[in-house]
Amino acid sequence: MPVIRVTLIEGYDEAVRDRLLEGYSAVTRTVLEALPEGITTVIEEVKQSNYRRGNQRKSPKAPPPAPEQLVRDYLGAMEKRDLAAARALLAPDFSMVFPGNAKFTTLEELIAWAKPRYRWVGKHYDRYDTVPGMTEAVVYCFGTLHGVWPDGSAFSGIRFIDRFTVKGGLLQDQMVWNDLDAVIRAVS
Amino acid sequence: MPVIRVTLIEGYDEAVRDRLLEGYSAVTRTVLEALPEGITTVIEEVKQSNYRRGNQRKSPKAPPPAPEQLVRDYLGAMEKRDLAAARALLAPDFSMVFPGNAKFTTLEELIAWAKPRYRWVGKHYDRYDTVPGMTEAVVYCFGTLHGVWPDGSAFSGIRFIDRFTVKGGLLQDQMVWNDLDAVIRAVS
Amino acid sequence: MPVIRVTLIEGYDEAVRDRLLEGYSAVTRTVLEALPEGITTVIEEVKQSNYRRGNQRKSPKAPPPAPEQLVRDYLGAMEKRDLAAARALLAPDFSMVFPGNAKFTTLEELIAWAKPRYRWVGKHYDRYDTVPGMTEAVVYCFGTLHGVWPDGSAFSGIRFIDRFTVKGGLLQDQMVWNDLDAVIRAVS
Amino acid sequence: MPVIRVTLIEGYDEAVRDRLLEGYSAVTRTVLEALPEGITTVIEEVKQSNYRRGNQRKSPKAPPPAPEQLVRDYLGAMEKRDLAAARALLAPDFSMVFPGNAKFTTLEELIAWAKPRYRWVGKHYDRYDTVPGMTEAVVYCFGTLHGVWPDGSAFSGIRFIDRFTVKGGLLQDQMVWNDLDAVIRAVS
Amino acid sequence: MPVIRVTLIEGYDEAVRDRLLEGYSAVTRTVLEALPEGITTVIEEVKQSNYRRGNQRKSPKAPPPAPEQLVRDYLGAMEKRDLAAARALLAPDFSMVFPGNAKFTTLEELIAWAKPRYRWVGKHYDRYDTVPGMTEAVVYCFGTLHGVWPDGSAFSGIRFIDRFTVKGGLLQDQMVWNDLDAVIRAVS
Amino acid sequence: MPVIRVTLIEGYDEAVRDRLLEGYSAVTRTVLEALPEGITTVIEEVKQSNYRRGNQRKSPKAPPPAPEQLVRDYLGAMEKRDLAAARALLAPDFSMVFPGNAKFTTLEELIAWAKPRYRWVGKHYDRYDTVPGMTEAVVYCFGTLHGVWPDGSAFSGIRFIDRFTVKGGLLQDQMVWNDLDAVIRAVS
Repeated sequence: MPVIRVTLIEGYDEAVRDRLLEGYSAVTRTVLEALPEGITTVIEEVKQSNYRRGNQRKSPKAPPPAPEQLVRDYLGAMEKRDLAAARALLAPDFSMVFPGNAKFTTLEELIAWAKPRYRWVGKHYDRYDTVPGMTEAVVYCFGTLHGVWPDGSAFSGIRFIDRFTVKGGLLQDQMVWNDLDAVIRAVS
Repeated sequence: MPVIRVTLIEGYDEAVRDRLLEGYSAVTRTVLEALPEGITTVIEEVKQSNYRRGNQRKSPKAPPPAPEQLVRDYLGAMEKRDLAAARALLAPDFSMVFPGNAKFTTLEELIAWAKPRYRWVGKHYDRYDTVPGMTEAVVYCFGTLHGVWPDGSAFSGIRFIDRFTVKGGLLQDQMVWNDLDAVIRAVS
Repeated sequence: MPVIRVTLIEGYDEAVRDRLLEGYSAVTRTVLEALPEGITTVIEEVKQSNYRRGNQRKSPKAPPPAPEQLVRDYLGAMEKRDLAAARALLAPDFSMVFPGNAKFTTLEELIAWAKPRYRWVGKHYDRYDTVPGMTEAVVYCFGTLHGVWPDGSAFSGIRFIDRFTVKGGLLQDQMVWNDLDAVIRAVS
Repeated sequence: MPVIRVTLIEGYDEAVRDRLLEGYSAVTRTVLEALPEGITTVIEEVKQSNYRRGNQRKSPKAPPPAPEQLVRDYLGAMEKRDLAAARALLAPDFSMVFPGNAKFTTLEELIAWAKPRYRWVGKHYDRYDTVPGMTEAVVYCFGTLHGVWPDGSAFSGIRFIDRFTVKGGLLQDQMVWNDLDAVIRAVS
Repeated sequence: MPVIRVTLIEGYDEAVRDRLLEGYSAVTRTVLEALPEGITTVIEEVKQSNYRRGNQRKSPKAPPPAPEQLVRDYLGAMEKRDLAAARALLAPDFSMVFPGNAKFTTLEELIAWAKPRYRWVGKHYDRYDTVPGMTEAVVYCFGTLHGVWPDGSAFSGIRFIDRFTVKGGLLQDQMVWNDLDAVIRAVS
Repeated sequence: MPVIRVTLIEGYDEAVRDRLLEGYSAVTRTVLEALPEGITTVIEEVKQSNYRRGNQRKSPKAPPPAPEQLVRDYLGAMEKRDLAAARALLAPDFSMVFPGNAKFTTLEELIAWAKPRYRWVGKHYDRYDTVPGMTEAVVYCFGTLHGVWPDGSAFSGIRFIDRFTVKGGLLQDQMVWNDLDAVIRAVS
């Protein structure tokens, strides 16, 4: 039933405004379980000169890419083994935790660790989920792994899930869970 | 910078209104990366008699529990092995996927499958994340498992993550990933 | 699609607020042909002390009865031949025009004119229509007449329509059209 | 005293917005009898991309002509005996009721019925009244008839009133009352 | 013409809300020279729990007395020679400038300086003016002095003006101009 | 904490809108002592065709210059002895009161009165203060006088204050206080 109106300084591009409207709609739907057609969301844009806080004009900075996009870019770069591009998306204190509680802080460590596990691996993504937050956003994505074992045999359909913390347009950390060990145990 | 105002029929309890304000704040922060102190959120409550859609008064139904709470309740009931209480929170077509792509539709199947894996297991939760959505919400929680192996030895600190789809106040499905197999492989 | 919000000093009773919401809904529907479920109307009540025009507080006077109610009251009083009650609802310069362009300014003139036309007459109302306006409202009502002719025979189902101008809680004028003459001609 | 603000997707032409503002002003004046200068009406237009209901963008369809205009067009076409133009404005199940309870569903029936009543007839309109509504609008117009009797003598100043139901840009029905019979009786 | 609406956490007393509405009205009138009856000001109060900035609830502190009231209190205390009461209204670094550029920081200095100028002095106030500001408010008051010269003769009607800076509920400084010297010169 | 939103017919230039936002910010800060960063002010401009009062469109007249600017222009013209320019800014019944209660209604009277007091005088302005009001604005300015005495010796640093009433883009009156007599007495 609610009507959500947002007063916004004009100038944000449509994709950003879309994400706001989607986000407000989803929050409302989730919290109230209101009928979708009863949820109205509106952005009311005002000129920059028509807005002040503390009697000061505000110059909104360009918002960062959507957290999901950032994660997609990172995962794409990793899949193409474009480490430079991937690294550019990482916060200085980026850290990773992989199955078996394996912890890394550099992509090189990760690659070294993975080397004996498979010759190569690819990912099919079933879905991305973004958790909005005041201090950071979280992006989950899950799907299945496919690739080639060290012995040259192929595998596919192995479930995985990644969790990324995103802040200030950079990835803060990555957590990974998957069924690789379960599959190996099952076949061994 | 934005001001988000929500026109709401009065009568929602404070916890529900809190969740709306938190949600709108988080969406705004995540999408715009606006400074937190520049994000103002306001609920403007109106009497039920002062609101119409299509010239009809609306009687907002009581919103369901927060998705996170639903998941906490379910996990708590499972931990206490209160299957009746747990089952009451499940949608009729509830389904589960556990490590190794083990699929179940009843709690009995799950319990039977788990029996040879450990004598008992408990969970420490590091964090819950809720993803709002128009058709369903998603709740993630992750942390560590502790318990006793079949051979009577103890384990702890084994990473896990659960993903629940929540809709209409019921859990639709559960997906689980954990490091149990990785740990078993490592020690075997 | 539109959202119509009305800032109103609190204190108007529910029936008055209902009529506002109905009126705004109907105007919107009629002008835009928007889908009804897309038309949201909201009254936002504020304390009298929280409203000023020209830096003056305003004390809204009690609104008059709905124009339709005024007409119903008048017609009811006339049907009961309670001339005093009927007269109390008429503006000082009230005037009437009846079929054949018969014009009156007093109820006595009307009664004298009607006397030879029928022994008595009653009305069945099919519908009332109210036309809102800045200077006056107009109320139409139509239906059928039934009664007894001068010769003692009965009649019924004779179409009529009344038009009243309403202003300041009083009827300003009445215009009447009906099929009495058409019926008389048809049977004669 | 009230302030009426309407959030509207931009793109409606000025005449449509004028009719909204007039309608809201008139409803407010009629219901509250507020002083006209205390009634403020405002349309706040937002970009189509800044509005969602149920997280869906909405594309407002072009609103139909004003009901009064539709009636004027119909009556004009009938006066010019442009039956094709008149017929184009009628709903498929259009029906008419004329004095003496004469009922028709086609213009041809009407014309046949009217033929013996007068050689020709014209109308002077004193006023149009529109009644907004959720399911249909009603347009009343009244004034005087002038023309030529079958015997070649002229008449004028004979009162009439028409009532049209308008929906979806088409006329649904017409009801007519007039003093023709009263005048004929008076002179015969 | 403008409509000024203020979203305010509920709980401010009526006098405070009055001053807001008066202030917004006066600013609008002064800047736009809009007709007073076209200036609508409204406070829309919301529950404290319905307002967040940066996802934090806010607890508005009780506002200080009106700057004009503070000045009146101070001048009243000085007239009654209640130095303790007067001193309680002064900021720690309060300073004064009197005619002839006489500067003081304590009330004792002021009294010592004034002693040879008159036996006693009283003030009639013609008007108070308050200048709102982001960092401080300024209060002006002017009128006439009356009293008794050192020689025992009376005086009255001598023009003066005081200017006070007010901040945080305390007086920051006082500037005084008057015609005492002009009058003395004129009579000497 | 408050959010102040102003619905304004579009077309006012930026300087005017700036003064509105500054004024509302300052009133809010002064009355509530709210933290500056918690005071949000927004102008929501609407097309002239989207605004009606009493069902009438409004054509806002161009607002007059800021009262402070008017005073600056007047004082500048007087300093340049451009009496025609100065006079053009005065209301027909403009009046002045100078030290010693000297009252004038024409600039010529003022000049005649000042002639024996100094050969010439200039002003340094420390600050302008504007007091908004419903019927008139008040502008205060103060600072120091410098110039040349009748005997040819120079003076400077002599405190003064002016008070102007401004209405309808004209100065209504001027009140002046200064230390000239105090200084003369001190040196004599």
